[in-house]
Amino acid sequence: MIDKLIERIAEKQSPICVGLDTKFDYIPQEFLSREFEKDALTYAATNIFQYNCALIDAVADIVPAVKVQIAYYEMYGCEGMKAFRDTIRYAKNAGLIVIADVKRNDIGATATAYSSAYLGRTKIGEEEIPVFDADFATVNGYLGTDGIAPFVEDCRKYEKGIFVLVKTSNKSSGELQDIEIEGKTIYDRMADYVARWGEDCIGVYGYSSVGAVIGATYPQQAERIRETHPHIFVLIPGYGAQGGSAEGLIPNFDKKGFGGIVNNSRAILTAYQNEKYAGLSFEKAAREATLAMQRDILETFAKHGIAY
Amino acid sequence: MIDKLIERIAEKQSPICVGLDTKFDYIPQEFLSREFEKDALTYAATNIFQYNCALIDAVADIVPAVKVQIAYYEMYGCEGMKAFRDTIRYAKNAGLIVIADVKRNDIGATATAYSSAYLGRTKIGEEEIPVFDADFATVNGYLGTDGIAPFVEDCRKYEKGIFVLVKTSNKSSGELQDIEIEGKTIYDRMADYVARWGEDCIGVYGYSSVGAVIGATYPQQAERIRETHPHIFVLIPGYGAQGGSAEGLIPNFDKKGFGGIVNNSRAILTAYQNEKYAGLSFEKAAREATLAMQRDILETFAKHGIAY
Repeated sequence: MIDKLIERIAEKQSPICVGLDTKFDYIPQEFLSREFEKDALTYAATNIFQYNCALIDAVADIVPAVKVQIAYYEMYGCEGMKAFRDTIRYAKNAGLIVIADVKRNDIGATATAYSSAYLGRTKIGEEEIPVFDADFATVNGYLGTDGIAPFVEDCRKYEKGIFVLVKTSNKSSGELQDIEIEGKTIYDRMADYVARWGEDCIGVYGYSSVGAVIGATYPQQAERIRETHPHIFVLIPGYGAQGGSAEGLIPNFDKKGFGGIVNNSRAILTAYQNEKYAGLSFEKAAREATLAMQRDILETFAKHGIAY
Repeated sequence: MIDKLIERIAEKQSPICVGLDTKFDYIPQEFLSREFEKDALTYAATNIFQYNCALIDAVADIVPAVKVQIAYYEMYGCEGMKAFRDTIRYAKNAGLIVIADVKRNDIGATATAYSSAYLGRTKIGEEEIPVFDADFATVNGYLGTDGIAPFVEDCRKYEKGIFVLVKTSNKSSGELQDIEIEGKTIYDRMADYVARWGEDCIGVYGYSSVGAVIGATYPQQAERIRETHPHIFVLIPGYGAQGGSAEGLIPNFDKKGFGGIVNNSRAILTAYQNEKYAGLSFEKAAREATLAMQRDILETFAKHGIAY
């Protein structure tokens, strides 16, 4: 799956992933359905799904992937989970690769259940059923190898991928992740594990299907990790609204523009509220914001001799 | 909420939580519904919910709480999430305290969404809706303070509680958690954070609504944490099937029998397969297994001068 992602990035010249962290409040008033559903959760979830579909249609030809942040669906209950499931299906039908941002973690047996839900299959009697069936999932490695192994197994079995949290984009990520022992931080150690977990999943472009999450807000840390871990493909959140710049993305990428995919959620979802895009529909504003991000990244790439 | 949990524990003389990690395969053949649903996920989820109800009825008078491990519901998709939601409601109606074992974690804004889903309320227009509305949730602190703060806020606002992963019960938990710097391990550091996050949530019995998860499989680590953190209430998985003994639970408890709650999932859910309980229905076997666990713990307590 990592090879397919890299090929789509090269094809579209777009190492960008649109984050569907769709809160009900983000949806423009005039787009909301006039038919009220039987309850508020169903109403919110239905509108979120419709909004996602319109957004996917607006960007499907200019990005290789979407990232669906499940927290924004769980908060609308079972109805929200339906919107999550249907958004994944819609995005895949539109030819996009789907990253389920679920940050799941547990002991082995339970991690197996999570992996069945997002990457693998659930066995019921003789049937083996793909459930949410995303292409990638994010996971948290605090429990160590036995909590990650079931996901890696499904990566191999079903050609999927995972991104393990290494250095997260938030302000307090250093509290634990930056603790240093004998010249190595906790995020360094996590990166070492990621490399080990993924060593049998390296594809034709030199990157493993077992990747890492490293925030755009921490370019020096990204550089440090990249130096010693050439095979780790990086999912990079934190560009835009969280303060990450295109310049800061560079350490993740090789000269062919491979090595990472940059997520942007809020600045694209709510681009229509930005005065730069005044007068545009939310779909057109989102498309323009995505194209502006692409230009920003490709221009910065060019300065560093990176090209597809 | 921590006070209520402690009172129920004392009332029932039972620091025990039954873990509803209900896999479809655990359900005895003869209990399965003869009416086939339109699809396998719905069939599995409906049967799991029915099984949970029967199990809750069988133990509601002898335990204070149940823990619902969401992975075993997510693996059955949206239908599974309905079973999760309905199980929580059924358990609360039966007078039980419900721990949602979700191990959620993310940056602040997203953690807020997760907390809305499991502990707080989701705002839609003027409405504020409780969604899954558990009493406690488990969380993972790898991202630091800003990923935990939204949960703590909801603990205060809605009288809820959380358990933060400190030292997990699985074999490879030490890979990261046991790394030691200047005499302190990562799990020590996590326990320090837990104490700090929970310092404004300490109830009348001296324990905070911001608690920790420490596996029964690591009694020495539990002792070490307890020595320096008297206010941390501990959710203790790993008793029974994972190898934790009653003796190993002791470090978590004070002389009144407060300080922790011990989870048991598999050995209770599948007690009917145990030859000790041959001939009993799964509900009766589960009840007997729970009573045996209670006896084991109370007898061990007595040896250490602990009594309710």
